[in-house]
Amino acid sequence: MAITVVGSVAFDSIQTPAGRRDRCLGGAATYFSLAASYFTSVRVIAVVGEDFGPDQQSVFQARGIDTQGIERAAGKSFFWEGSYLENLNEAKTHATELNVFGAFEPKIPDAYRDSEFLFLANIDPVLQRRVREAMPQAKLVAGDTMNYWIKDHRDALKQVLKGLDILLINDTETRMLAGNNNLVQAARGVLGMGPRMLVVKHGEYGATAFYGARTNGLGAKTFRAPALPLEEVVDPTGAGDSFAGGFFGYLASQKELTPGAFRRAMFYGGVMGSFAVERFGTERLQQLSRAEIDERFSQFRELTHLD
Amino acid sequence: MAITVVGSVAFDSIQTPAGRRDRCLGGAATYFSLAASYFTSVRVIAVVGEDFGPDQQSVFQARGIDTQGIERAAGKSFFWEGSYLENLNEAKTHATELNVFGAFEPKIPDAYRDSEFLFLANIDPVLQRRVREAMPQAKLVAGDTMNYWIKDHRDALKQVLKGLDILLINDTETRMLAGNNNLVQAARGVLGMGPRMLVVKHGEYGATAFYGARTNGLGAKTFRAPALPLEEVVDPTGAGDSFAGGFFGYLASQKELTPGAFRRAMFYGGVMGSFAVERFGTERLQQLSRAEIDERFSQFRELTHLD
Repeated sequence: MAITVVGSVAFDSIQTPAGRRDRCLGGAATYFSLAASYFTSVRVIAVVGEDFGPDQQSVFQARGIDTQGIERAAGKSFFWEGSYLENLNEAKTHATELNVFGAFEPKIPDAYRDSEFLFLANIDPVLQRRVREAMPQAKLVAGDTMNYWIKDHRDALKQVLKGLDILLINDTETRMLAGNNNLVQAARGVLGMGPRMLVVKHGEYGATAFYGARTNGLGAKTFRAPALPLEEVVDPTGAGDSFAGGFFGYLASQKELTPGAFRRAMFYGGVMGSFAVERFGTERLQQLSRAEIDERFSQFRELTHLD
Repeated sequence: MAITVVGSVAFDSIQTPAGRRDRCLGGAATYFSLAASYFTSVRVIAVVGEDFGPDQQSVFQARGIDTQGIERAAGKSFFWEGSYLENLNEAKTHATELNVFGAFEPKIPDAYRDSEFLFLANIDPVLQRRVREAMPQAKLVAGDTMNYWIKDHRDALKQVLKGLDILLINDTETRMLAGNNNLVQAARGVLGMGPRMLVVKHGEYGATAFYGARTNGLGAKTFRAPALPLEEVVDPTGAGDSFAGGFFGYLASQKELTPGAFRRAMFYGGVMGSFAVERFGTERLQQLSRAEIDERFSQFRELTHLD
């Protein structure tokens, strides 16, 4: 089934121990949709500026991603500059220029309105909520957020959480959102805010899904997917968004959302995140095959398999 | 088969967000031997002072641990004081008093000499090497170390590594020992120093075994065991030593050291570490049953199980 994703499509300038790239295609919606495109059809809602040309457009087209929801506005696209020189697990931001994104008013093409899966990537929770309300037909709604919205836009974010089935955030964001340093207790606190499932992304250590605690107040159930220890991380940018794309894309490809489907989705999330960091920007995500993806899925499974 | 372990038997004063305990029984060899005692017979080599009395002795006796290698010396036992108030993952050391441990000369009882498994807990690598050389019959030798020895006693430590089958250390120690921030590259570097297997302990995220790279210089094989996300961590002291005890104890209980046995041993290591942190000091490790241990093993397995 089709996924609609709303989020940023951007240009990134990135420096890592492996080198530097200027103004490569980036943005949460870009990484998400490329990763998800290997599993299902994807439709993007975003805004770009006049610097978004045929080269960028072709990256989406080559993966069959529907871009009629990418609005062109006068001005420049969202731009981010960051480095990972001291710590590959945490970006140091040097510049964030919202540009056309500052006045973003998501417009939903009619052709997107039958999407049964909706992903609200990390943007202003006011916009996330507006898109969610404009797409009441969505059967499964997942989303992401970040420390900035948790700290300074908590009320708006809490409104979004009430309408989410699945929230995907990292360890630090989970602890900050719940105001609790113990991950399990924090996860239960977040589940009490609305989402039926919380997926906590641990970077190189994998991810943990917490679910099933909302109604009875008892301990949440957990499922943990490991990450493959990687020989070389070229560029960590977009790893979390690629995890979300693999996770949600795999779910959208399934006829039934069984517990087993969610478990495999956690593994596919880790798989897509692990590919994303192997090259700068979206390079690796642009040229995968489903066979490569399934081969790595098997490696992930083997990594923790007991006979 | 029997394990001989050499290491510290100590008194610890510990403060955590859950409270405070003064002078409870601690030390790497204590946690290790209690954890391993649920799987096989364990023999301890250590030195204690006059403050080590019947209360402490009975903790070992109740678990059937052979203590004839625990030497009594004039003076006080090794003492450590630390807290985990800001970060449960890293102890802040307030006091370390070597006391009788400063002049420790390990003496190996004749009755220990048929031990086929030898564990060199975290002590001066000069002593580790001496014990290893005095027990040439040991078929499988594993050991631990810490940042202090890696930084300031590197040459002595490297001699120990040449005689080890398995080294168990944490992420930071692995990176420091190899001088490489990428965990996979660092692991390969450590494997090049001698051990046939490196087990990297990730704390709340589990552990990864790297092995099989020494001879051909190609990428090491990996196996990752997750940790159970814990609702409450009362006292993290000894978690790593308990992991080692569960891991090595389980291996010593197996007729054949198959790849499957090593994988299950990684899970049993995580299981024993997760019990250790549930109460202060060694309280929880003193009163487990094998049924409780196997129940948690099943939970760990279920935690990452794909159909």
